Amino acid sequence: MDSRPIGVFDSGIGGLTVIGEIMKLLPDEELIYFGDTARVPYGSKSAETVTKFSRQIFNFLLSYNVKVIVIACSTASSNSYDSLQSEFDIPIIEVLSPGVEDAAHVTRNKIVGVIGTEATIRSGKYVKLLEERIPGVRAFAKACPLFVPLAEEGWTQNTVTRITAEIYLQELLDKEIDSLILGCTHYPLLVDCIRDVIGPVKIINAAESTARKLKAYLIKQDIQNKAHKLGGGHRFFVSDNTDKFRRICNLVMRQTYEAQKIDLEKYL
Amino acid sequence: MDSRPIGVFDSGIGGLTVIGEIMKLLPDEELIYFGDTARVPYGSKSAETVTKFSRQIFNFLLSYNVKVIVIACSTASSNSYDSLQSEFDIPIIEVLSPGVEDAAHVTRNKIVGVIGTEATIRSGKYVKLLEERIPGVRAFAKACPLFVPLAEEGWTQNTVTRITAEIYLQELLDKEIDSLILGCTHYPLLVDCIRDVIGPVKIINAAESTARKLKAYLIKQDIQNKAHKLGGGHRFFVSDNTDKFRRICNLVMRQTYEAQKIDLEKYL
Repeated sequence: MDSRPIGVFDSGIGGLTVIGEIMKLLPDEELIYFGDTARVPYGSKSAETVTKFSRQIFNFLLSYNVKVIVIACSTASSNSYDSLQSEFDIPIIEVLSPGVEDAAHVTRNKIVGVIGTEATIRSGKYVKLLEERIPGVRAFAKACPLFVPLAEEGWTQNTVTRITAEIYLQELLDKEIDSLILGCTHYPLLVDCIRDVIGPVKIINAAESTARKLKAYLIKQDIQNKAHKLGGGHRFFVSDNTDKFRRICNLVMRQTYEAQKIDLEKYL
Repeated sequence: MDSRPIGVFDSGIGGLTVIGEIMKLLPDEELIYFGDTARVPYGSKSAETVTKFSRQIFNFLLSYNVKVIVIACSTASSNSYDSLQSEFDIPIIEVLSPGVEDAAHVTRNKIVGVIGTEATIRSGKYVKLLEERIPGVRAFAKACPLFVPLAEEGWTQNTVTRITAEIYLQELLDKEIDSLILGCTHYPLLVDCIRDVIGPVKIINAAESTARKLKAYLIKQDIQNKAHKLGGGHRFFVSDNTDKFRRICNLVMRQTYEAQKIDLEKYL
């Protein structure tokens, strides 16, 4: 066993959907969360910039002696995972391959859609992973840049969000996808509107898939926390002020956690 | 006369609407533009964070020996102008008071609306300036957080943007405003949709107002550039990569300028 905490980070507060799933599946683990709210979003920025920001966050999380780091951000997972893995000597769980694994089990017609931020889709990583994992797959990816701002505005169920979803998703429906990966940790917040638009297409929530993968990894390595403290030691950090964190935390987790603001520039 | 360049900055590329107006009115001036594209948007962030970022940009622009700095960002103008003015010994033109001045000339019924980012509206600066400048005014402010992402997505004239505008602007129309300040330098890009929704209400474009104020200031101080080089020396800098800058530059200015990426962390 290993009672050290698990580090989790996201560009902002989308990663809280992953935190929520981890808490359900692994109630004994302590979590250290960092949300880069001063520089959110990552999804519209370059791979180089996202990797630089992620590196600072790794250094910050390592200062808390974490046993594993979960990159709860698809943009950082798709643009920075390879660099981070070669630079840091810590196990890393990213959010892409768990969703791909689930898609492999769910799809019948092998036509799979994936939606994400501009940077995630531009990286081509999801399509590559799907093609490697599912022989003969036809994978179609679509960037949905307005979904994050819509989720953060709290417009999770209104007309604007539904029409936006129709505009973004029609071309995937035209390809006859039978499953759709929500390839951004914000998107589960919009799942009702997305479901209205895609009807019977199966939805794969990468946040959920990632929590399951993390659990399997801890068991396999025998590094679970068996101290049974029931997560009393969770700590939340953000780079901008904490008001917005509190608001979104309530929206996502239906529970309030207090965050602490820290200055990342020390962790170059 | 003074042939030194003029510094202009924005959180991202919205400030290009101000650059466009300055180029029209002051074709002889050389401009140094900085767009903080690695950390855009500022509008959803705290005053403290926005001021810290603005301070770094001031230090950067000052390294180019500028004669005046235009804060072409309403969020930084409303949250950071006072701090910057007390810290730096350089003339500063911000974007709020020029729009307020124009509103004073335009309004007949003294009921004025203003729209901007979350941080701009939260600061309360626009309402305060309107109340100081127009005795008896009734000023109503409304944050429109989705307008910047919609403008950057290029959805300047579609249904989603029009419905979003209806949702945001209805409460201002209910107050019977006769004039509306576009209090964010991105918003002129959405002017067609906004006009569809507000009908006969007069629109005040703060970008235009600011360029006129800058011109008046240069003439009054007698620090115009009379070298007649016709702006050959404009330079554009961004903090993220330059692809997106090029795309939005074409959209806003119908002309291509090349930007250079620089690392702001040296300018602490």
